[in-house]
Amino acid sequence: MSTLHGKERKALGDCLTAVHEKTPLIHNITNYVTVNDVANALLACGGSPIMSDEPKDVEDITSICGGLNINIGTLNERSIEAMFLAGKRASELGHVILLDPVGAGASALRTTTAQDIVEQLHPSVIRGNISEIKTLAKGAGTTKGVDADAADTVTEENLDEMVSFVKAFAEKTNAVIAITGAIDLVSDSERCYVIRNGRKEMSRITGTGCQLSSVATAYAVANPENMVDAVATAVCLMGLSGEIGWSKMQDGDGNSTYRNRIIDTIFNMDAKTLEEGAKYEIR
Amino acid sequence: MSTLHGKERKALGDCLTAVHEKTPLIHNITNYVTVNDVANALLACGGSPIMSDEPKDVEDITSICGGLNINIGTLNERSIEAMFLAGKRASELGHVILLDPVGAGASALRTTTAQDIVEQLHPSVIRGNISEIKTLAKGAGTTKGVDADAADTVTEENLDEMVSFVKAFAEKTNAVIAITGAIDLVSDSERCYVIRNGRKEMSRITGTGCQLSSVATAYAVANPENMVDAVATAVCLMGLSGEIGWSKMQDGDGNSTYRNRIIDTIFNMDAKTLEEGAKYEIR
Amino acid sequence: MSTLHGKERKALGDCLTAVHEKTPLIHNITNYVTVNDVANALLACGGSPIMSDEPKDVEDITSICGGLNINIGTLNERSIEAMFLAGKRASELGHVILLDPVGAGASALRTTTAQDIVEQLHPSVIRGNISEIKTLAKGAGTTKGVDADAADTVTEENLDEMVSFVKAFAEKTNAVIAITGAIDLVSDSERCYVIRNGRKEMSRITGTGCQLSSVATAYAVANPENMVDAVATAVCLMGLSGEIGWSKMQDGDGNSTYRNRIIDTIFNMDAKTLEEGAKYEIR
Repeated sequence: MSTLHGKERKALGDCLTAVHEKTPLIHNITNYVTVNDVANALLACGGSPIMSDEPKDVEDITSICGGLNINIGTLNERSIEAMFLAGKRASELGHVILLDPVGAGASALRTTTAQDIVEQLHPSVIRGNISEIKTLAKGAGTTKGVDADAADTVTEENLDEMVSFVKAFAEKTNAVIAITGAIDLVSDSERCYVIRNGRKEMSRITGTGCQLSSVATAYAVANPENMVDAVATAVCLMGLSGEIGWSKMQDGDGNSTYRNRIIDTIFNMDAKTLEEGAKYEIR
Repeated sequence: MSTLHGKERKALGDCLTAVHEKTPLIHNITNYVTVNDVANALLACGGSPIMSDEPKDVEDITSICGGLNINIGTLNERSIEAMFLAGKRASELGHVILLDPVGAGASALRTTTAQDIVEQLHPSVIRGNISEIKTLAKGAGTTKGVDADAADTVTEENLDEMVSFVKAFAEKTNAVIAITGAIDLVSDSERCYVIRNGRKEMSRITGTGCQLSSVATAYAVANPENMVDAVATAVCLMGLSGEIGWSKMQDGDGNSTYRNRIIDTIFNMDAKTLEEGAKYEIR
Repeated sequence: MSTLHGKERKALGDCLTAVHEKTPLIHNITNYVTVNDVANALLACGGSPIMSDEPKDVEDITSICGGLNINIGTLNERSIEAMFLAGKRASELGHVILLDPVGAGASALRTTTAQDIVEQLHPSVIRGNISEIKTLAKGAGTTKGVDADAADTVTEENLDEMVSFVKAFAEKTNAVIAITGAIDLVSDSERCYVIRNGRKEMSRITGTGCQLSSVATAYAVANPENMVDAVATAVCLMGLSGEIGWSKMQDGDGNSTYRNRIIDTIFNMDAKTLEEGAKYEIR
């Protein structure tokens, strides 16, 4: 471990090992588009998934889990009620809550729901694209459907500004904030990981962001004292799996096979490969 | 472009290029069985998917999209309400609406819902198997679950009759009608594409029809002045991808791998391959 | 056929052949996590799937099917109502009903719903892990989420006791009971299949249990006079497919590819391979 900003930093490989050893059970209230990949990605990384979005069921279910992953990708009135019931119980129990505000900025219902979750449930981690996070931070954004607006991209040119933004929002929400895109930022207000793993072709698969959110929940649960390091590790893991998965693509393969290759790579990842392949700096 | 029936025909390759260039964003209200494959097929063909079926969310979501794909495969009271709300907004905005009447004829609710959508929302495109389309056209059919009844098949023997039927139904509904099966028919009342791409093994995978409907929506959105050509192109694309995907199958592969191969082939399709592999005549 | 306990036993290969010949249409009310794999596994084994969970739709849909597969993995108020409506209609029609009590013991709603289904719908087959079945049998269990609790495992040491337990529960419920795990037990009270196919890596894929339940429904429907043999055949088929699928794994493959390999193997299974690979004894 190295020391930075007065807090010890947990190495990526140690974060991974903790997940493998603890097999955290994660309650997912998530969209029905990518839910199967979310479950298999959680199993691949060493966690264990359970899904429930019925208000009468979620308090019991979340009680036996270690963390709660809330993804609003196909929210509805029933699942929104379930999110708040599960979230309140999870809060009482001191569980990790991660929010993935899919499409915040694209509809009033999504924006309002995501804002209410931040204010009322105080999630430990918020992970989204830059448009979604800006919508939460500033009450306005230009989300293009479920993808980030190009005008919102984190680039080498605006990196300093973006690092300041994510640190400030982390401080305001008292959460670990993860903004993912071509360059990923993960911050707990004191430090900010700037991560350059991943491939642009990952955006041609549905659900890599949703998978990351569930994996990051497992990482946060297994490494409760080092949540920013844990979430950054999950982001590196996902991006590196995208790189290694792509390297295995053969003639004729496309996005469906790429999806399988990425989850397979998460399944086979070990601490050494992750440490060697992770590309990040800390600011 | 060639001229036929007084209207210019847009070449298949040009229809494909338009999708690749425009990346149409498609709002899908679809079933939870095949929704992941629908999203990946849309991404594979060059489109972009968003899913929402909550009445309070769908009007905002459909407003930022270019087209709406309504699939009643696992309809429920909430999603039916969402279909009509989204459809009315999409109509007001002049968006393409495609209806996939999954299981029309198999239950009263499905038949009624599909008929109401045709009458109230006036979809630009209707795509189904012959049993489903007959149910809509004649108010009666012998749908066998979600598959067409064998007694309803389009064959070489009844082809003339079927071409007349599809043209008449296209005229009545003022929509492009696509009937898919061993022989596919796509018509806008003036011309009828008779398409012989595809493989029978595709019926051993769930969701190739659902995928086609979403891809056809993207094609119609990207080629608004040539909708019958665009939908026929999507049908050829899907069938040809089934043929090429099958040619890559190896010993021990089955329907799960075949599913991946088809989406991968859509991902890699270019205009030249499509033009050379498409098997169709126009009547 | 051999005779045992006064009842003729149908060979595994004959059970498989019956499914291939009859293509049973199965109505599935199942969870949205694994539903796509359930549909493809049903198609792979020679059955045909239809999904519907809307109360106003399910009675019509189940009427045109041969059997009903009820899986409570992501139950909600609407789908619970649909389960009972479909179940009552299926009962009236003499259809096979299979219950997969996912997570019984993990929440009050799941436990109560599963118990009510057993009491009111009298399913022909109940398939679950040992924790779920114990919960149903004894009104108490220690389900760990959707996985069995380690303390509940069927082992060589407690096998005699477990065989007695499953026979007694089969007699009490007048159903075929299938308990799956490292050792699988399938009993109709008179005989008990003890099955040792499968691999531990199957638990790293979401949904192999759900797939088995749908396949077992198809097997029971196609072999109505030999339901215990049919369900045991489905259990052997799933486990053997897990073994053969694993033998095809290559360097870098993980749980996502393994999922595909298993379904592919079901697709390619023939009577001879199944008979030769099945590992079971009858007690």
